[in-house]
Amino acid sequence: MTDIPSPLALAQGLIRCPSVTPDEGGALAYLAGILGLAGFAVERPVFSEAGTPDVENLYARIGGAGPCLLLAGHTDVVPPGDAAAWRHDPFGGTLEGAELHGRGAVDMKGGIACMVAAVLGFLRRRGPDFGGSVAFLITGDEEGPALNGTVKVLAWARARGERFDHALLGEPTNPDRLGETIKIGRRGSLTATLTVHGTQGHVAYPHRAENPIPGLLRLAQALLAEPLDAGTAHFDASNLEFTTMDVGNPASNVIPAEARATFNIRFNDRWSPGTLAEELHRRLAAGAGNAVRYTLDVRPTNAVAFLTEPDAFVHRVADAVEAETGLRPALSTTGGTSDARFIKEACPVIEFGLVGRTMHQVDERVAVSDLDRLAAIYGRVLDAYFPADAAPQKRA
Amino acid sequence: MTDIPSPLALAQGLIRCPSVTPDEGGALAYLAGILGLAGFAVERPVFSEAGTPDVENLYARIGGAGPCLLLAGHTDVVPPGDAAAWRHDPFGGTLEGAELHGRGAVDMKGGIACMVAAVLGFLRRRGPDFGGSVAFLITGDEEGPALNGTVKVLAWARARGERFDHALLGEPTNPDRLGETIKIGRRGSLTATLTVHGTQGHVAYPHRAENPIPGLLRLAQALLAEPLDAGTAHFDASNLEFTTMDVGNPASNVIPAEARATFNIRFNDRWSPGTLAEELHRRLAAGAGNAVRYTLDVRPTNAVAFLTEPDAFVHRVADAVEAETGLRPALSTTGGTSDARFIKEACPVIEFGLVGRTMHQVDERVAVSDLDRLAAIYGRVLDAYFPADAAPQKRA
Repeated sequence: MTDIPSPLALAQGLIRCPSVTPDEGGALAYLAGILGLAGFAVERPVFSEAGTPDVENLYARIGGAGPCLLLAGHTDVVPPGDAAAWRHDPFGGTLEGAELHGRGAVDMKGGIACMVAAVLGFLRRRGPDFGGSVAFLITGDEEGPALNGTVKVLAWARARGERFDHALLGEPTNPDRLGETIKIGRRGSLTATLTVHGTQGHVAYPHRAENPIPGLLRLAQALLAEPLDAGTAHFDASNLEFTTMDVGNPASNVIPAEARATFNIRFNDRWSPGTLAEELHRRLAAGAGNAVRYTLDVRPTNAVAFLTEPDAFVHRVADAVEAETGLRPALSTTGGTSDARFIKEACPVIEFGLVGRTMHQVDERVAVSDLDRLAAIYGRVLDAYFPADAAPQKRA
Repeated sequence: MTDIPSPLALAQGLIRCPSVTPDEGGALAYLAGILGLAGFAVERPVFSEAGTPDVENLYARIGGAGPCLLLAGHTDVVPPGDAAAWRHDPFGGTLEGAELHGRGAVDMKGGIACMVAAVLGFLRRRGPDFGGSVAFLITGDEEGPALNGTVKVLAWARARGERFDHALLGEPTNPDRLGETIKIGRRGSLTATLTVHGTQGHVAYPHRAENPIPGLLRLAQALLAEPLDAGTAHFDASNLEFTTMDVGNPASNVIPAEARATFNIRFNDRWSPGTLAEELHRRLAAGAGNAVRYTLDVRPTNAVAFLTEPDAFVHRVADAVEAETGLRPALSTTGGTSDARFIKEACPVIEFGLVGRTMHQVDERVAVSDLDRLAAIYGRVLDAYFPADAAPQKRA
């Protein structure tokens, strides 16, 4: 490889691959070509699961003995919706002024482009014998069911004897300005449906029926009455939101037989899904007494709360961010879930990427200057992780 | 007319007419023939309303100067459902042992049969110059929208100069045994839908959204917290039942934009629909404070609470019931609505009929002995209303 492509050129190359989940769209092939040319051993594992489409993934590794830094991400993107509503073709990778437009510009083809550009520069500076190894885990199933992606690549890698010391996931973590936020953990997510059972009847004869709706109101209040917690060292308070409440009775003279409500809890490291379900059952039993008949159906979840303790690795990344942006990033655990919840089973993982403001929206776009600065940040992380004066050795 | 038909024969004749709303099914023609032969002036007004089928009705009057007693009812019936689930053809009028089977047996072809048999007997005893007049108002639109029935027949009669002193409606008023209950009024019915407005968003970022469900819980509690009243002299307490509560949000990671609940109130003579709506608005405003944005949509209603004060007429009917059954009937205002809510605009109205236990059910049926006793009760009412020794005069 003679010239190192710019982050912009790499991001454009990726955006022009229409890789809406579960389609690979050429995005992984594009990366495989570039990484292979740079000396990576590239694998393209495909995984299957009954009831979901097969999904392609990419795993690539370079280097030798010493610590291994895993760089993780996804090339699949959410659908563009009505392409006519976009200022530019969502898969065009169009540059307008100082901004690159296209689906995935920030979530997260842009982030992957910066990682690749940083690694290519690092290898150019240091050669393949840099005192450790760098691995890429790029999935095509992050925006979809997330069943045939990161979880299975990690299991596949573990079975091959691969191990990682730290991981950096390039999701867009900054709300407004590059440098604001590193994510050092994520809350868990648990969804449950509460059904209150009554007895149908005519509204004119309520004593012959049992209206489930007042019971549902009572149990909903029992769930909401007290906060689940007051937050923990690195997490906000856990939060319960009712997302729907449905009876579906069209007859205004009929008392219905059943009423249902679904809620979602984003929970911190005070809870596991198991202890949280116990707390829900406790609150419902106390609220119901002998007066309300109900069923709680807690959906299985793999979104467990996790935290990567702010250690030397975290501070090294924060130093790199501050050096390029002038901002000392907050260490945050807010927001939704990401594949970091799977990676944390393999090694400590943190997330830092672009500014997420336009993600999943029409006219998703990224400032070219942000691409350049993020690539420089990742380059600083690599230099700090594999110091030139250190002998190859395992780092804690 | 030589022989007076029995209540059983008249009920069978009516049941064999398949008069499911809005079909006349021959039932009104059957009555018109019998009443015409007995000397009644019979009219068959048909009424229309945009969006509903035309409906046939019957109005018949006999007699001269003096008080007018209106006998009211309906020949339309609710559908039989799965006819195969019935022991006998629902339109067969089959006698099984001491019971007559068929749709309408108690609601209320049986009641009309008893009225007709009673009037024919009364006319046979007293002749056409009995010191007043008797009118029949029989509609074919009571079980349906009730737009082209009693309301319009009464307006049509008023326009012709007809006036009534008292009315007796033959709906099935007895829960278990003939003689238990006279209805001297009915509660009103009001339905309203409450919508709470929020702002849609992602459950992971609740501070950027506004979940309408807690607001709906709060307003529902505000409506239910205090009883509407403690009942009145002749009425039970008014009662509010939520009949449905719907959000319809399938996504467990999305906070919805709106939540809706519908409720129905059965209210006593403490309230008009207007004062009740005012009270609802007052409770909601107090419950909402500045924290909940909501809309209340109160549906127009013609089901106003009414009471016929227990006067001499009511006691005369109760005496007749007691003489035939040995039971002193309770004077009740419970249960659903009926066409009495319309008739009370024309004159005082009470309701007494058969035992309603099987109404609207499979195998609707009536004891033949109840038909005979109800016809005898109606006969006693006629005799008491038009005493043989009184000169023709208006009664209060």
